Amino acid sequence: MAATIRVTVWNEFLHEKKHEAVRKVYPDGIHKVVAQALGGEPDIEARTATLEEPEHGLTDKVLSETDVLTWWGHMGHNLVADEIVDRVQKRVLEGMGLVVMHSGHFSKIFKRLMGTGCDLKWREAAEKERLWVVDPGHPIADGLPEYFELPHAEMYGEHFDIPAPEELVLVSWFAGGEVFRSGCCWHRGQGKVFYFRPGHETYDIYYDKTIRRVLVNGVRWAAPTGVAEVKRGHHGDPLERI
Amino acid sequence: MAATIRVTVWNEFLHEKKHEAVRKVYPDGIHKVVAQALGGEPDIEARTATLEEPEHGLTDKVLSETDVLTWWGHMGHNLVADEIVDRVQKRVLEGMGLVVMHSGHFSKIFKRLMGTGCDLKWREAAEKERLWVVDPGHPIADGLPEYFELPHAEMYGEHFDIPAPEELVLVSWFAGGEVFRSGCCWHRGQGKVFYFRPGHETYDIYYDKTIRRVLVNGVRWAAPTGVAEVKRGHHGDPLERI
Amino acid sequence: MAATIRVTVWNEFLHEKKHEAVRKVYPDGIHKVVAQALGGEPDIEARTATLEEPEHGLTDKVLSETDVLTWWGHMGHNLVADEIVDRVQKRVLEGMGLVVMHSGHFSKIFKRLMGTGCDLKWREAAEKERLWVVDPGHPIADGLPEYFELPHAEMYGEHFDIPAPEELVLVSWFAGGEVFRSGCCWHRGQGKVFYFRPGHETYDIYYDKTIRRVLVNGVRWAAPTGVAEVKRGHHGDPLERI
Amino acid sequence: MAATIRVTVWNEFLHEKKHEAVRKVYPDGIHKVVAQALGGEPDIEARTATLEEPEHGLTDKVLSETDVLTWWGHMGHNLVADEIVDRVQKRVLEGMGLVVMHSGHFSKIFKRLMGTGCDLKWREAAEKERLWVVDPGHPIADGLPEYFELPHAEMYGEHFDIPAPEELVLVSWFAGGEVFRSGCCWHRGQGKVFYFRPGHETYDIYYDKTIRRVLVNGVRWAAPTGVAEVKRGHHGDPLERI
Repeated sequence: MAATIRVTVWNEFLHEKKHEAVRKVYPDGIHKVVAQALGGEPDIEARTATLEEPEHGLTDKVLSETDVLTWWGHMGHNLVADEIVDRVQKRVLEGMGLVVMHSGHFSKIFKRLMGTGCDLKWREAAEKERLWVVDPGHPIADGLPEYFELPHAEMYGEHFDIPAPEELVLVSWFAGGEVFRSGCCWHRGQGKVFYFRPGHETYDIYYDKTIRRVLVNGVRWAAPTGVAEVKRGHHGDPLERI
Repeated sequence: MAATIRVTVWNEFLHEKKHEAVRKVYPDGIHKVVAQALGGEPDIEARTATLEEPEHGLTDKVLSETDVLTWWGHMGHNLVADEIVDRVQKRVLEGMGLVVMHSGHFSKIFKRLMGTGCDLKWREAAEKERLWVVDPGHPIADGLPEYFELPHAEMYGEHFDIPAPEELVLVSWFAGGEVFRSGCCWHRGQGKVFYFRPGHETYDIYYDKTIRRVLVNGVRWAAPTGVAEVKRGHHGDPLERI
Repeated sequence: MAATIRVTVWNEFLHEKKHEAVRKVYPDGIHKVVAQALGGEPDIEARTATLEEPEHGLTDKVLSETDVLTWWGHMGHNLVADEIVDRVQKRVLEGMGLVVMHSGHFSKIFKRLMGTGCDLKWREAAEKERLWVVDPGHPIADGLPEYFELPHAEMYGEHFDIPAPEELVLVSWFAGGEVFRSGCCWHRGQGKVFYFRPGHETYDIYYDKTIRRVLVNGVRWAAPTGVAEVKRGHHGDPLERI
Repeated sequence: MAATIRVTVWNEFLHEKKHEAVRKVYPDGIHKVVAQALGGEPDIEARTATLEEPEHGLTDKVLSETDVLTWWGHMGHNLVADEIVDRVQKRVLEGMGLVVMHSGHFSKIFKRLMGTGCDLKWREAAEKERLWVVDPGHPIADGLPEYFELPHAEMYGEHFDIPAPEELVLVSWFAGGEVFRSGCCWHRGQGKVFYFRPGHETYDIYYDKTIRRVLVNGVRWAAPTGVAEVKRGHHGDPLERI
């Protein structure tokens, strides 16, 4: 594991420019707030990238220098070029971590890596959400209380159309009567994927101390580890005499 | 669960027409042999479909009448139209079972549903393979011996670039020194996916009684079950007063 | 899989004899109601056994003729003899299914098979529970609606100290603010274990049509399948020349 | 996560005293060699404990100061007192990591935490073992080659009677024709359990650089993480108005 985790915080950065209500909460964009939260840790270095940059800011060079990519998107999923999605997928399979936040559930890259529709129920009613830790020894739960609350959240409800999480860390309770698998982990190739539900553009959720703790934990969990080199393809010489 | 499981056995049906060696083993195509194996069971009805048919034989009508689709492809993965892959994926997410055989690991539909590269090591040296049951109570292991052997098999070796199987049933030992996760299960949406390694076009593997037993078990396991209806999307009215 | 699934419905049968309130709901014991629910299916044959019978009704003969054992206990967990627990565990590892209901989470046999403390939060306040299906294609969800409700339930809350379910089918929402993993599946040896949360001695939950459907599905899922014979121990003769 | 991981290396320390052949390989006991391997890392502090010490060296004080316990036993499993097993299990459920090595598969503590028989096939024929990484991005695979070999190993073969590993990292190939799930991870309560197959008392396996790397990785993976405090039991006051 590298000493410093190099994170690229990606944001479509559309809501913040179009809606005054969002700009009030995130004047410089959600990515700036997330990057600040992550970059404040001694073992994390955070840079940002957005949709409008050339190649959406996700050039081969940037990705090759990224240990963990965090993803926030909502309105602009379809504006992300397929070639960039291909490139990000390739990097995840090679070991780059991916932390997908909230409405990123419907991003091309998340759907690509899951193989499912990734749809869910949703409702915007500023209702209470309570997130329960169901795997209390998991690294992503490190230092968390047994549950934490968001007073005003957009509801996401089951069925969430994802493959069963390989590790399920958090389950949400919503005042309106729904539940949701809110902290979910998967391995994909040599890479790791963490989906974390909270975070809406009109709520100040990414300023919340506990939410930031989960993001930091998620980044550390998703940081590259593993074998030096994976080999596949034609393997003509057997290791043993046949 | 329906009384009769309606299976569509899909085959690209290319090798058999091009190579005399394959035609000798499967004169009417691999699909005919697989369909015969499955259709011989009282609870299974099997039809076939091939690449060259209109819409590859996988029309909306055919798929809507299919409980489980089995997939054999090798040379022609790229000849399968993306629209058909979309359609099959949609049906799997809606509940249709999918049994992917051998070189189908590289088919568009399998890669789509896995979200990974699905690559592996391979070698054609007619070596011995021994498949060990590692989940002896699994329905797909029903009636099997603790291990079974293929005297002449193409080798597939790790790392097999798939998501960790939700249920791992079989692990292969190869004479040349490799191992492989050979019987793997996943849920995707309301559908179930079973990958089964054995089966090469130049070996008479699909005539083998144990192999056929696994295919039959796989089809039964993958047959649609589950909730009457899944709802997703906007869910404006909370179930409880907020 | 056998044509008929032979179920033994076990109940400690203590509450019903001691408390008038329980007797009103289950005059002949919870086991009679559960056995009636299961035995009403054409493919299931149900008998009962209780704590007070010799060997708690779980003789070698009874167990050897049992495909699936269902377990209800609450006050009398410690009255179950360790030898009987050993015997039941052995039978599960050999392939017998086990369906553990509600307060059976604290039974010796469930704790034995889980390896964890199996403790949880609880509250008796007759509050509303809503169970959401999170694996909509699972056999245990067969024919269920996307969620179902119990108007008056004892609350069980996380953290539920169990190994992560190999298949998580149901998650409960409680009016009081908690969530719970309420339908959980594991393989143990050749056997299968299903834990199902609902069912309190003072509520008429086991008369509920949907609850009964889950129990029937659970029994079918847990019915023995798998390899003819598992071998372990000294294996002096290698299968290949070393 | 603490800055330094405090490891207690436990060994029954019987073979080394009874058999000259073992003493030649491990003159001061297997524990000394393992402790040296682990303690050589800057972030790990290793002490040892053995069966013959009072309370087997596993007093409340020692366990309360242990982040990860490694376990080696073979001849003396039944000499381990049940009270000590209870105590170790309790500590694991509270968050202590446990790394079980080789013949420790049959230890009381491993069987207790697994809930299964933990039996397997075995043969002592000094045959070749090749361990393949099947989860190449896993922290326990960090820095490993895609496979590694032991020229002379005791064979362990399937079926290994354990719950399906939550994370399967290594699969062994044996010259004699068997396979084995050799690197297996589970969460139990707040604790983590890693089983690692290699290591026989008459082979110098624990001097091997790659084996030591796996042990170090296993200890780091198993080190305590997670929530500050887990609450269970009576929870009379709902978090929401019912």
